[in-house]
Amino acid sequence: MERMNLTMLTDFYELTMANGYLAQGLQDRIAVFDMFFRRIPDGGGFAITAGLAQLIDYLEGLHFEEEDLVYLRGKGIFSEDFLEYLRNFQFHCDVWAVPEGTPVFPNEPIVMVRGPVIEAQFIETMVLLSINHQSLIATKANRIVRAAEGRSIMEFGSRRAQGGDGAILGARAAYVGGCVGTACTLAERDYGIPAIGTMAHSWIQMFPSELEAFRAYARIYPASCTLLVDTYNVLKSGVPNAIRAFQEEVVSRGFRPRGIRIDSGDIAWLSKEARIMLDDAGFPDCLIVASNSLDEFIIRDLLGQGARVDLFGVGERLITSRSEPVFGGVYKLSAVEENGVMTPKIKLSENVGKITNPGFKQVWRLFDRDTGKALADVVTAFEEEIPEDQPYELFDPEYTWKRKTVTNFSARKLLVPIFAGGKCVCQEKPLSEIRTYCAEQVETLWDAVKRFENPHKYYVDLSPSVWETKNRLLKQYG
Amino acid sequence: MERMNLTMLTDFYELTMANGYLAQGLQDRIAVFDMFFRRIPDGGGFAITAGLAQLIDYLEGLHFEEEDLVYLRGKGIFSEDFLEYLRNFQFHCDVWAVPEGTPVFPNEPIVMVRGPVIEAQFIETMVLLSINHQSLIATKANRIVRAAEGRSIMEFGSRRAQGGDGAILGARAAYVGGCVGTACTLAERDYGIPAIGTMAHSWIQMFPSELEAFRAYARIYPASCTLLVDTYNVLKSGVPNAIRAFQEEVVSRGFRPRGIRIDSGDIAWLSKEARIMLDDAGFPDCLIVASNSLDEFIIRDLLGQGARVDLFGVGERLITSRSEPVFGGVYKLSAVEENGVMTPKIKLSENVGKITNPGFKQVWRLFDRDTGKALADVVTAFEEEIPEDQPYELFDPEYTWKRKTVTNFSARKLLVPIFAGGKCVCQEKPLSEIRTYCAEQVETLWDAVKRFENPHKYYVDLSPSVWETKNRLLKQYG
Repeated sequence: MERMNLTMLTDFYELTMANGYLAQGLQDRIAVFDMFFRRIPDGGGFAITAGLAQLIDYLEGLHFEEEDLVYLRGKGIFSEDFLEYLRNFQFHCDVWAVPEGTPVFPNEPIVMVRGPVIEAQFIETMVLLSINHQSLIATKANRIVRAAEGRSIMEFGSRRAQGGDGAILGARAAYVGGCVGTACTLAERDYGIPAIGTMAHSWIQMFPSELEAFRAYARIYPASCTLLVDTYNVLKSGVPNAIRAFQEEVVSRGFRPRGIRIDSGDIAWLSKEARIMLDDAGFPDCLIVASNSLDEFIIRDLLGQGARVDLFGVGERLITSRSEPVFGGVYKLSAVEENGVMTPKIKLSENVGKITNPGFKQVWRLFDRDTGKALADVVTAFEEEIPEDQPYELFDPEYTWKRKTVTNFSARKLLVPIFAGGKCVCQEKPLSEIRTYCAEQVETLWDAVKRFENPHKYYVDLSPSVWETKNRLLKQYG
Repeated sequence: MERMNLTMLTDFYELTMANGYLAQGLQDRIAVFDMFFRRIPDGGGFAITAGLAQLIDYLEGLHFEEEDLVYLRGKGIFSEDFLEYLRNFQFHCDVWAVPEGTPVFPNEPIVMVRGPVIEAQFIETMVLLSINHQSLIATKANRIVRAAEGRSIMEFGSRRAQGGDGAILGARAAYVGGCVGTACTLAERDYGIPAIGTMAHSWIQMFPSELEAFRAYARIYPASCTLLVDTYNVLKSGVPNAIRAFQEEVVSRGFRPRGIRIDSGDIAWLSKEARIMLDDAGFPDCLIVASNSLDEFIIRDLLGQGARVDLFGVGERLITSRSEPVFGGVYKLSAVEENGVMTPKIKLSENVGKITNPGFKQVWRLFDRDTGKALADVVTAFEEEIPEDQPYELFDPEYTWKRKTVTNFSARKLLVPIFAGGKCVCQEKPLSEIRTYCAEQVETLWDAVKRFENPHKYYVDLSPSVWETKNRLLKQYG
């Protein structure tokens, strides 16, 4: 499906700066920008990256159309040279990124761009928008999936999403984070995310009685019959009528009922009672689906109270990440290349937490060879190596007396090449593979990092060389 | 700009129900659905509707493509008759809606659809998504605009938006709610919302010094020069360097400087000090722009502390409505027509707040003729009239002893025809007109309704006939 060209979805200042770089003759100065974030949503112990495939689509499709140039000329501030530059715009940058579905932590680059400053700066808005949005939803989805302890989570939130992409790409990110499917039909058509859905209350209301509505539905969908049982009264009418419709219209046709859905009331109590009624009726295999303003905390509580729910439908609190709807990724200049020499750059701030890590960098993750668990991430200079056959001394960048030597580890570079010289150099992975990879990577984290409240802080350390560069610049500008 | 066909952005259950209605021969049964919401975001006193223009585009563009039918056939549950029905799908419904930019209140229809149930049901997801998203952002924007007490608000949030539409249509909704413009370039190109922007910190970092960066920018944009002054130190370097660049590169060319922008630190103190420095330098007309995680509460606090800010740039907390990122509009069956007779329908719930108002309805707003202020809304039967020349007794649907007779009022129907028999019957209004209309309509509300905390509850009453219908159905099904 053809999507809209989003080249012009850019903050206007990217254009005024681009025009300025051209006017200054700075357009080909090589710059390095890092995208990173400073805080994990919901006070969690890690985030999940997502949205890279959409960023790649955007970068591959970057071009300005005549109507864009007409519009920009009308602003009266851009030179004809610049408009001509945009007409012939080509993307030449190198891009590295942490693969989608990877657990990531604050203050490490998750996307890195190196190239002519005019281009590397221009793409800022969409780098951030793409990765911020889907990482937000993948992170939230993963929390909800973990709360369900093996039960399935369906994404049900399109109607409350913040725009069409919020629904479609939100469903994509939720799937990466571990949801089993979505209610959004278009997300299955375009991304292959399993879409399911059965009936609204209005279906029941359209028939003279609940039982007639159930019978009609069961006759049409005997092989996949899930009935919504809370239009009138779950236990007095919904479940008994569902059992009757299952017996009369499903079993009689040689099928087994799929499930019932409860969308209101006390899910813990109702699901336990419904489970007994279904079991007694000979349907122990009939699933119980619950929905209604769920999130990771309510699901955890429900399960703690013994709710007998097999599948949770989660809507608005997932698709908007309601409890924390912003993923605060930023995009900062970290180095400039002049005459072949890379000069690291730092941004100071009155808030020390906002000071950036300068230089052209790489991120390594060290895994314990015995347990397979992730030990720490280390931000190094790009060309630095972490040899696996030697002990490595970890080094806390804030509390520098905290040191720890690790041995018997494997080390993996997290930033992998995505574009080289403006050409995409990575292969698109099937979404289901990304989802599996995500689940595997989350497994490499210690339980302490996965706690919802007060998770253990995973170490993101700086290599001595990055730390020295940072300190040198702090002394120089501070 | 061609936008993607979103016909398939629908909850999968709309399709299973549609196939079911066709199988049952119910496809042409006339049904009435209401969209309404139950709670105002952020505990506010009113919401602002928006998103109708995008809903109209969606409804006018409704059609299924061959790839949709191929995909749906692959699900293995839809009849060939149904796929043929979708191939020839045409929209025949009547639609009424409250015009964009109108203040609205809980439990009154803001969109109403009447037509063949298969069509009226199918459009549910996009009715809700379109109106929920933009009403959320317009409502939030209006709060922030009111907090600024006449100072300007710019929408700056694209990079933190929930997807591309979140950014673009969020900018549109923010403009409806009263923002003066956006940073989103595409939103100006496609919707005419004024886009502005100047420079990021990286511009400053690309030059050997802040002063050189300012001079370069001022030379290129002398007529619209706003300089970002917080890269190193606002008062020690940023403002003095800006003043020098203004004098050397702007004034010398016969222009006046536009402004400075402060993006971190204590905005109240920094803006007061910067104001003095700019005034002393002979630039009392130089604007001070502030940004950095602002919202209505921080802006109100800053102004209470005497901040000298002329224009606020508001990002993530506006574009996601961070404090409450969900507008909970619902779409409920309210009546069914059989043999020309309209039968009202009600949905019960264990939660009394979720019980719907049955029947085919209209919403009236009564205005005091002397003050021009809105007195109350009344939900009536569709054909009911509220004559302006007779006293009208208002009637609280919850506390029925609370009655009040109003005289000397004008009465306006809020639901206006949008589609008749599937054809659009309303004219598209320029966005700037919608924005002006919104500001005028907000002016008709008493200050007590506009409070941020504990606002006065505006009356949304039922006409005696709607109330009687509701009570009759409650007794019948309750």
